[in-house]
Amino acid sequence: MFELQHADIADLSQGAAFLGAGGGGDPYIGRLILEQVIDTHGPIQVMDLQAAADDDLLVATGMMGAPTVMIEKVPNGGEAEIALRQLEKYIGRKASAIMPFEIGGLNALLPIALAGRLGLPVLDCDFMGRAFPELQMVTPSAHGMPIAPLSLCDETGAAVLIETDDNKDAERLARHIIQATGAVSQICGFPASGAQVKACAVAGTLGIALNIGRCIRQAREAHRDPFAEIAAYLSSTDYYRHARVITDGKIIDIQRETRQGFSVGQVTLKEFETARTLIIRFQNENLIVETEGEALVMVPDLITVLDRETGAPITTESLKFGQRVKVMGISAPPALTSPQALNFWGPRAFGLDREFTPLEDISPA
Amino acid sequence: MFELQHADIADLSQGAAFLGAGGGGDPYIGRLILEQVIDTHGPIQVMDLQAAADDDLLVATGMMGAPTVMIEKVPNGGEAEIALRQLEKYIGRKASAIMPFEIGGLNALLPIALAGRLGLPVLDCDFMGRAFPELQMVTPSAHGMPIAPLSLCDETGAAVLIETDDNKDAERLARHIIQATGAVSQICGFPASGAQVKACAVAGTLGIALNIGRCIRQAREAHRDPFAEIAAYLSSTDYYRHARVITDGKIIDIQRETRQGFSVGQVTLKEFETARTLIIRFQNENLIVETEGEALVMVPDLITVLDRETGAPITTESLKFGQRVKVMGISAPPALTSPQALNFWGPRAFGLDREFTPLEDISPA
Repeated sequence: MFELQHADIADLSQGAAFLGAGGGGDPYIGRLILEQVIDTHGPIQVMDLQAAADDDLLVATGMMGAPTVMIEKVPNGGEAEIALRQLEKYIGRKASAIMPFEIGGLNALLPIALAGRLGLPVLDCDFMGRAFPELQMVTPSAHGMPIAPLSLCDETGAAVLIETDDNKDAERLARHIIQATGAVSQICGFPASGAQVKACAVAGTLGIALNIGRCIRQAREAHRDPFAEIAAYLSSTDYYRHARVITDGKIIDIQRETRQGFSVGQVTLKEFETARTLIIRFQNENLIVETEGEALVMVPDLITVLDRETGAPITTESLKFGQRVKVMGISAPPALTSPQALNFWGPRAFGLDREFTPLEDISPA
Repeated sequence: MFELQHADIADLSQGAAFLGAGGGGDPYIGRLILEQVIDTHGPIQVMDLQAAADDDLLVATGMMGAPTVMIEKVPNGGEAEIALRQLEKYIGRKASAIMPFEIGGLNALLPIALAGRLGLPVLDCDFMGRAFPELQMVTPSAHGMPIAPLSLCDETGAAVLIETDDNKDAERLARHIIQATGAVSQICGFPASGAQVKACAVAGTLGIALNIGRCIRQAREAHRDPFAEIAAYLSSTDYYRHARVITDGKIIDIQRETRQGFSVGQVTLKEFETARTLIIRFQNENLIVETEGEALVMVPDLITVLDRETGAPITTESLKFGQRVKVMGISAPPALTSPQALNFWGPRAFGLDREFTPLEDISPA
């Protein structure tokens, strides 16, 4: 158990952007929302997953849709609460605590804001251990657990509840509804007991995000190398133990298009030391780093692009020609790399014709 | 209270097509579904609205979407039951009886089929007294009552529940969801107490539909004029007292397009006796009959096109060049013609720049 104060949120949002692996939305708006909630309602209690009772009702929340639209339609907080109330009415029980379904970017912060507004604890865990572009790409899927019922609420205040046993179908329906009704929506769903969440969630990720953000800030303040400090810290965690800089170079080309609601494309980098070119392919999140047909790191391992001077993470929608960056590869939590799990988010789930090879088994090129 | 037998369904479906005013979907599929339900589960109890207890929970059902698609995706009955169960779970109560929200066409028959499958009574009333193209065009709207929560279920078995206080918003959301997910869906909604339904429903319309169908069949069997018999019967009802043949002619032109999910267009007729031309404009349902700029009958009065030999009603999607038809105008139930009600379904609600003038106040041209 720890407490989140106003002063923690800048670090937390940097760490959440890091774990977003290029996706999860820009956390800057989430930071502003969350700081305001803390100023109004006070510090927020973060509860260890193991402290949840086995029969607690836990609900995950976040946003779904185009982050680019969200910048213009900033959620007022009411939408997430309407979605939660609809879900609770349907289930016939009140939530004991709120949790993020993804720890990447904005979606790490919105659940904390909802918990803070309602005076509920937020649970220190998530269902991805990073960010992924689709709702069914969560650890409950790998455990055969449904993510529905899911409640969606947009800025009109109308709420829509989806019920299906098929997690891909839930994603498909939610995506259609959001595209048809306004491109962005707050969602509450994944209702599960404490026992179920303990069986499948990635524990401790909020605390890890906060620590990553602190590493980056403290290194910057002390003029130390943020990349070495991040790697040193991650090697001490349960999940992200292997982490290294994959390349250090300049962005010389970006191709990016919006396809079926996703930001899809690739970035070409020229490495300073060797002058070789590397390509990062992405679908909202970074999926793979390749050079001359060889993969240097691939999904579900995390690939995060950072400003080479400040160590600030850069989301895929903020990548620009000429940026000087370092790219880090980080080993995925073990919950993401079982054969069953790789069916949902291994390279082939994204149309990449490769077997998953963990970062630590690929020699640095 | 009366009982619907297998032998009644052909007549009921003809009467429902008549009250559909060109819309409500072709009732032939509904007839087949309903006959099969009666063969399996036995006759179905039709309960008078006044027999409902004031605190009964009443739920209305039917289909929404393109009737043309429904011919290929025949509902198996399971969808409506899934939608009902989701709605009941959300409300926290079981339905006491089922009712149609529109008495026109297919949607008069599907609620009876659901009631028959579940062993529930079907209530002898509806919320339109005819068919209309949009969900908010129901008598609860004119009484300030919400139509949500609404549950939708398509052939995949996934269910979506919509919650909003704004009936136009409910229509907009439901239409988007259905267009995005498969073009047709079974819906259950409009949950209300017996007292609320008594305050706003159009009572007795299932019985009236059955009697209209009987008139048409008996006249045909006895080689009598079905139009005179329908008009004579309707003059004895509480609602549809003014009914007359507006024109008798041949279809010489049809313009029809699918616009925003609706079948929109106009039919041109040449009258046999006078050789003058008349135009019927429609949006799923027939909206107005005009000749030389004069309106002969207009929405919400009912306009039904019938085969001039057999008296069989013809839906707007079945109108064809060269058909010889009679067009009947029928006065709308008084619940549809109050100033408040006309805001929802008067001529201007369909983009026609006219004040509503009742059929009985327009002299036969």
